[in-house]
Amino acid sequence: MATGKVYFELQERKIEVPAGTNLLQAAALADVLIEGDCGGKGTCGKCRIKILTGGSGKITPAEKRLFSPEELAAGWVLACRQKVTGDLDLVIETSGARDDVISKTRQKRQAPGAALDPSVRKYYRSLSLPAPDDRTPDLERLVNSLPGRGIEADLGVVAGLPRLLRQAGFKITAVLAGNRIVAVEPGNTCGRAYGLALDLGTTTLAGYLVDLVRGEVAAISVSCNPQAVFGADVISRIRHAAYNEDGLHQLQEKMLDAVNGIIRRLQDQALIQNEEIYETIVVGNTTMIHLFLGVEPSNLALAPFIPAFNRSLELRSAELRLRLPPAGRILILPSVAGFVGSDTVAMLLAAKLDRCENVCLAVDIGTNGEVALADRDRILVCSSAAGPAFEGYHIEYGMRAVEGAIDSVVIGQDVQLGVIGGTAPRGICGSGLIDAVAGMLKAGIIDSAGRFVESEPDRAGLYPGLRSRLLKNGSGAGFLLAPGRLTATGKDIVITQKDIKELQLAKAAIAAGVRVLLQEMGISAGGIHEVLLAGAFGSHVKKESALAIGLLPPVSPYRIKSIGNAAGDGAILCLISRAERTRALSLGSRVEHIDLSSRADFYDKFVDALPFPDLTD
Amino acid sequence: MATGKVYFELQERKIEVPAGTNLLQAAALADVLIEGDCGGKGTCGKCRIKILTGGSGKITPAEKRLFSPEELAAGWVLACRQKVTGDLDLVIETSGARDDVISKTRQKRQAPGAALDPSVRKYYRSLSLPAPDDRTPDLERLVNSLPGRGIEADLGVVAGLPRLLRQAGFKITAVLAGNRIVAVEPGNTCGRAYGLALDLGTTTLAGYLVDLVRGEVAAISVSCNPQAVFGADVISRIRHAAYNEDGLHQLQEKMLDAVNGIIRRLQDQALIQNEEIYETIVVGNTTMIHLFLGVEPSNLALAPFIPAFNRSLELRSAELRLRLPPAGRILILPSVAGFVGSDTVAMLLAAKLDRCENVCLAVDIGTNGEVALADRDRILVCSSAAGPAFEGYHIEYGMRAVEGAIDSVVIGQDVQLGVIGGTAPRGICGSGLIDAVAGMLKAGIIDSAGRFVESEPDRAGLYPGLRSRLLKNGSGAGFLLAPGRLTATGKDIVITQKDIKELQLAKAAIAAGVRVLLQEMGISAGGIHEVLLAGAFGSHVKKESALAIGLLPPVSPYRIKSIGNAAGDGAILCLISRAERTRALSLGSRVEHIDLSSRADFYDKFVDALPFPDLTD
Repeated sequence: MATGKVYFELQERKIEVPAGTNLLQAAALADVLIEGDCGGKGTCGKCRIKILTGGSGKITPAEKRLFSPEELAAGWVLACRQKVTGDLDLVIETSGARDDVISKTRQKRQAPGAALDPSVRKYYRSLSLPAPDDRTPDLERLVNSLPGRGIEADLGVVAGLPRLLRQAGFKITAVLAGNRIVAVEPGNTCGRAYGLALDLGTTTLAGYLVDLVRGEVAAISVSCNPQAVFGADVISRIRHAAYNEDGLHQLQEKMLDAVNGIIRRLQDQALIQNEEIYETIVVGNTTMIHLFLGVEPSNLALAPFIPAFNRSLELRSAELRLRLPPAGRILILPSVAGFVGSDTVAMLLAAKLDRCENVCLAVDIGTNGEVALADRDRILVCSSAAGPAFEGYHIEYGMRAVEGAIDSVVIGQDVQLGVIGGTAPRGICGSGLIDAVAGMLKAGIIDSAGRFVESEPDRAGLYPGLRSRLLKNGSGAGFLLAPGRLTATGKDIVITQKDIKELQLAKAAIAAGVRVLLQEMGISAGGIHEVLLAGAFGSHVKKESALAIGLLPPVSPYRIKSIGNAAGDGAILCLISRAERTRALSLGSRVEHIDLSSRADFYDKFVDALPFPDLTD
Repeated sequence: MATGKVYFELQERKIEVPAGTNLLQAAALADVLIEGDCGGKGTCGKCRIKILTGGSGKITPAEKRLFSPEELAAGWVLACRQKVTGDLDLVIETSGARDDVISKTRQKRQAPGAALDPSVRKYYRSLSLPAPDDRTPDLERLVNSLPGRGIEADLGVVAGLPRLLRQAGFKITAVLAGNRIVAVEPGNTCGRAYGLALDLGTTTLAGYLVDLVRGEVAAISVSCNPQAVFGADVISRIRHAAYNEDGLHQLQEKMLDAVNGIIRRLQDQALIQNEEIYETIVVGNTTMIHLFLGVEPSNLALAPFIPAFNRSLELRSAELRLRLPPAGRILILPSVAGFVGSDTVAMLLAAKLDRCENVCLAVDIGTNGEVALADRDRILVCSSAAGPAFEGYHIEYGMRAVEGAIDSVVIGQDVQLGVIGGTAPRGICGSGLIDAVAGMLKAGIIDSAGRFVESEPDRAGLYPGLRSRLLKNGSGAGFLLAPGRLTATGKDIVITQKDIKELQLAKAAIAAGVRVLLQEMGISAGGIHEVLLAGAFGSHVKKESALAIGLLPPVSPYRIKSIGNAAGDGAILCLISRAERTRALSLGSRVEHIDLSSRADFYDKFVDALPFPDLTD
């Protein structure tokens, strides 16, 4: 197998990889983090690097769109578009790239709405000078000048206080996180204060730098979770921790490295010092939180799936190896159960499910789907193991939502496809699959049981363009989405009978979870006032298609709203509002966790939810 | 200059030192800590080592007394008695020595009296097992089983909890320090729990291992403060921190190393694990506490002498580099001022000055004398700079209280001397000087102004044996204690007129401090019910002599009591009694600090106190 060498100049790392590996993958293998948040689709334009020597010289349409001719001439490319050719060594520069990329792709995002009242507070004080008749010690002098009682200070703060006070002429700014002095700075720095919201996902780690003075998101940085080298899913990572002596430590170190990378990039983007990040709110699924903290996770993978803790934990940054001020506060939001983590709690907070006037359903669809149903009094939550069909796995031609994936399908007289990156299709991702199956249902290609129509009268009713796509081959019935002559692989892309079954299993799991919660609440689907879709999948899936296949309960599409990355928003809310934080902390115990695996009625509801809704109803 | 090499086998350290250096000093220079608490007098017998090869073969009387013939034959010697000869390399074993020494010199000391009610509590629990219908997380399962609310746990405890619970079959002992779980141990370990009391002095560091189940002192270990290599007094150490970039860190590291040595020896003595020491109470003078914590001390040496903090601080062991369980609690008792440290607060606690029924005076005499006066309502404290005369410095033939020092003097018809170690005298230490001057006063050799009597009638009244000792030489009058033919140096040992002045200055500083406090309290010396003498000097000085020279106010000697190492006792009390700890924490703010340097009347009182009491009164 041909291989090629890539040398990352700034990091002084060299790696040899198989030809065909793209430079984003090569960087990941070399432990060089290159920013990017479209998952290698060539759309976000973030993974810019400069090829100093080597390279194929082939420029892709994405690069033509994103770079000026001068930049292209200088060697700028997208790491995800360029492959190692095997006959040339590459030398890559990522350093200049980073600043340049950031200035072009900096994202400002409005922080989710809440009155600005952060837990981190700054107080500028011009303290009276010590004198023979005023020998108050430095710390007491400072504390006496601050509002509130029971104020404490970290040893690190006390240690440097004498010098700092005198160098600053006793004109200083004290930074309090709650009742704790986490920093003291010379002069008046009240105009600058930052917090960090971290959302630790199995696949993706997201960091939001929040300006606590202006109440806005100052920068966002996203990276792959580098623990992926130990397995894509939580179970394989838990196994790695369980079966390798240093496994847990390795997993934690990977995560901390990546979070430190995120912090560095946020700093660079927002032009701040990491010492100005006084507080961090952390959310994530229960396993990721365990691994982040170095807490033994193995019982999360063994029945009866007991977490080490659900409660919120408060740490000082120094307890983890993070590039944050040592006395800075780290608050882990509470979890609910082994499969309902603090990310769900944050989602509930952002979705305001603790303040519902009407019945509200919130759904975060993934391999584990979290479903929450709330009214004025109760908040019910369950986690439903939908399996990976929504992520494109276990589907004959399935793939993740990356370049070449069919992500939207419209079935009219014929079939119209949308492909990520605008290239020839290589497969189909979750949202494409839902679209396709919804369209097939509507067009009468499959019946509500998910079976391909077989009778001649049924088939005769189809448009000719669709009828010609119906296949019957050795592996059963199928529907041709794209013939081989139009695909990137040269092979047909087909929706098979098995694919439809997989989708039915996945959507039935979610739908049955919804039905259990509705029954627990004592209402029917008609009583749902609003459906909130959280997360990336929730933003991409077409509401009508989701309704058509019965993934969501029968409500008007106007009642369905995407709320984006609600977990991150919830963490941000906890940074900017003490009231919201108090809500989040109480949510952990307020939420009623409905454990589906112990419900006798879940299986019945699951079976009931397998058929598609009868569109003739 | 002849030098000799010494090799410490266990520690694998080699050092070359000038001939004549004793092995205790050589060990200190090689950073090898050898236990010993008599300051090299050859009396405590603790610095036992075994010479494997080399050595002079000369056995001193102290060694003959302390070792059996078999031990002597095996090479056992006292490190403080044996010198490097310069013509032989020595190989030293301290390891076997340690255990052996300990078994012979182990000290059990009754803990100072207080009802046993430690802050550290152990709870044995046989927890219910997780089950499908009981998925309480591990931490919550444990916390729910413990009494009290708001119980928190250290991350380190949470991290290992899942494995520990399962390995122990959910039968565990939780260790709480206050509201915090500092350890969880498999099985029932309620029978074992230890705390550490540390007294950090400028010269000596003392550690007391306290059995918190039995309420007794399990072991004591004392070491020299190795910061002494940067200067004997606090000022030179503060300067070292101020003028060397890494100075503060060096001082802290030296101290932490020594404390770790103390912890190791306590462990070895008491046959415990360091993980069983759940809590540490630290007292010391204000400078030592700053240096122990790595807190900038320079303003303690600059007017107006502002400490970084006086309040008590609570840390986790992990915040310092100590050989203690990372989650273990470290509590620094509060100080009162730059020269009135937490050791004084602990002394006040042990002396029960916060619970006086009558007026009580407590004095800790040293280079800095701390004086406290309390009645039912108030506790007044001052620090008086007595200077080093009590330690034998600034005295013509003065020396520290080590071997060869005259430590007691009886003047009758002639002079009778007591010498530390029973050898020929080399000089005189503080308690000897006080005895000598008291005796000279009584015998009429000096008058109450401290002047040698000169008139013929006065001299004629003296015993002939004393009269013959009156000298008149170039440097003024003097009193011959020991003629050169009887001394170790061949030189006369004489009390000079200047020595008497030095002692007058020193005792007047203490006495004036007492007078200021008496005036502040509005009482006379006659109102003092009890005088408590704290510290080593207080244990050694003769009450009658101290009264005779006016170091102490005129009270009956029966009202004077030595209370030994009251600072250590106070720290121990805080370990074994929550009520005592609460008292200690409130003492910091309850005590009224009387700043002598800012009192206009101090100088007058000081001058008034310079003469000796008129014995004819």
